[in-house]
Amino acid sequence: MSKARSSKTASKRSRSKSGEAKVVTACLIIIGNEILSGRTKDVNLNHLASRLNEWGVRLTEARVIPDVEATIIAVVNEARGRFDYVFTTGGIGPTHDDITAASIAKAFGVALVRDPQALAIMQRQHKPNDLNQARLKMADVPEGSTLIDNPVSGAPGFQVGNVFVMAGVPLIMQAMLEGLRHRLVGGAPVLSRAVRAFLPEGAVAQGLSALQTRFSELDIGSYPFYRKGTFGVSLVLRGTDQDQLGEAVAALSDLIRSLGAEPIEEPAK
Amino acid sequence: MSKARSSKTASKRSRSKSGEAKVVTACLIIIGNEILSGRTKDVNLNHLASRLNEWGVRLTEARVIPDVEATIIAVVNEARGRFDYVFTTGGIGPTHDDITAASIAKAFGVALVRDPQALAIMQRQHKPNDLNQARLKMADVPEGSTLIDNPVSGAPGFQVGNVFVMAGVPLIMQAMLEGLRHRLVGGAPVLSRAVRAFLPEGAVAQGLSALQTRFSELDIGSYPFYRKGTFGVSLVLRGTDQDQLGEAVAALSDLIRSLGAEPIEEPAK
Repeated sequence: MSKARSSKTASKRSRSKSGEAKVVTACLIIIGNEILSGRTKDVNLNHLASRLNEWGVRLTEARVIPDVEATIIAVVNEARGRFDYVFTTGGIGPTHDDITAASIAKAFGVALVRDPQALAIMQRQHKPNDLNQARLKMADVPEGSTLIDNPVSGAPGFQVGNVFVMAGVPLIMQAMLEGLRHRLVGGAPVLSRAVRAFLPEGAVAQGLSALQTRFSELDIGSYPFYRKGTFGVSLVLRGTDQDQLGEAVAALSDLIRSLGAEPIEEPAK
Repeated sequence: MSKARSSKTASKRSRSKSGEAKVVTACLIIIGNEILSGRTKDVNLNHLASRLNEWGVRLTEARVIPDVEATIIAVVNEARGRFDYVFTTGGIGPTHDDITAASIAKAFGVALVRDPQALAIMQRQHKPNDLNQARLKMADVPEGSTLIDNPVSGAPGFQVGNVFVMAGVPLIMQAMLEGLRHRLVGGAPVLSRAVRAFLPEGAVAQGLSALQTRFSELDIGSYPFYRKGTFGVSLVLRGTDQDQLGEAVAALSDLIRSLGAEPIEEPAK
C-alpha cells in the first residue's frame, strides 16, 4: 500500500461472506516523548480500549513511541497492514515537536497539504495577525484525508486510510473518538462476566484450566488481588455468546464452592 | 541470537571506547489481555519510565500485547535485538493464561526448566499438599535464567539475556525493579528543566523552534494545558549537560517575557 486511497477500509470487513460476525481488530499508537520519560501518565489507552470494546472493536495491541519520524513511519506502516483500524494520539499541535501529520503523510507516500476546511476552522478561531505559521501547521494533513472533528479546541484530527489521527490531550482525544463512532464498523461485541472469590489463585488454577479447555471459545482471565487482609482472585470470562457465558459462570461458581469459597459476581467490563 | 547465553549483555554498552557516556535504551513489554480490554489500568509504564530515567536508562518504546504465545515470541525477539534492556510485566502467575515464562523460553530457543532456588522458595511458602502443579509452574524459568527477587509474595521473576521478566501486579513489579538496580548499567543520566507560561502554545511555537535549532543537543517538548480559565504551556528541556540546560532555560525565559508573559520554573522530571 503506497497511497492512502488504495488502502483497505475496515467497513467491509465486519462480516464474512457467510454473514457471520467477524473479529474487528485495532491498534493504538501513542506518540510522545512525555509518556516514555514518565512526565505524563497516559490515560488514552484505557479509554479507547473500553469504548472500542463497547463498539465491537477489539484493541489488540498498543505501542508507545517517541516523536521520531522514522519510528512513526515504520510503526504506522506495520500497524495499518496488520490491524483493521489504527488510532494514534499525540503530536498534532503547533510546535516543532509535533511531527505526527508530516510523518504519517510520508508513511502513506502522499503529500502533506493544507486542508481548506481545517484552514477555515483556524481562521474562525484566530485573528489574522495571530494566525502564524505555527498555527497554520495544524491545518496540514496527508493528501486524501478526512477530517476528525474537534469540538473542544477547534484544530481537527484526520483519518487517512484505516489510520485515525487524534490529539493527545485526553479531553480532546475523547471528544474526537465519540465523533468517530459512526465511521467504525464493529464485529460481534465482546460480552463479559466476572466472578470474584476469596481464594488464592494457585488453589483455583487447575480447575480453571479445565474450564478453559471445556469452554474453548471463551477467553478466561485470572487476576489475583489482596483485599481485607486476604488473597483473592477475579475471574473474567469474555466471549460473544451470552448463553455460553452463562453456562461457564455456573460451572465456575460450582468450582469455587467445591474449593470452600463463595462466588461473588462482579460488574464486568 | 538463538541461545540465551549468547545474547549481548548491556553492561558493556554504557560507555563507548572513547570513554564517552552512551545512551542506554530500554523497551517495556506489557503482557496482558486485561490492559487491552480496558478492565485494568496499567501503572507500570509510568513507574518504570521514571525509575529508569533516574538510573540513566532511557525507555525508548513500550508495547502492550495480548497473552498470545506467537505474539510474545515475536515481540520479545524483536525488542531484545533493538534495545539494551527489555522489561516485561505480567503473565507469570499460576493459571492457564500465565504463559510468559514458556513463551520467552521459546523466544530464546531454550528449555523451560524448574529452578531449584525458585522451587525452594515455593516450598517454604506452601504446605506440601498445597504445592500443586499450578503453583509449581511458578518455579519454571527459561534455562540459563537468573532469578529476580520478589520480596512481596515470593514467586520470583527472572532475567534471561537482556530480558527482565517481572510480575504485573504493581506492588510486586515495583519491588522486583528495585532489586534490579545494581544489575542495570546506565548511561549519562537525563537531566531536565521545565518552564510554564500562561501563553497559548501557538504563540510560543515559532520562537521555540528557533531555540530547538540553537540547542540541538537538547530535546525540547511543548505540552499545552488549560488551567484557571487560561491556556498555558509547559516547556520541558531534557539533556545530559547541566550548563547547557541552564543556558537554554535562560533563553527560553527571555522568549516568554518577550511575548508578554512570566516564565515559571516547574519541578521537572
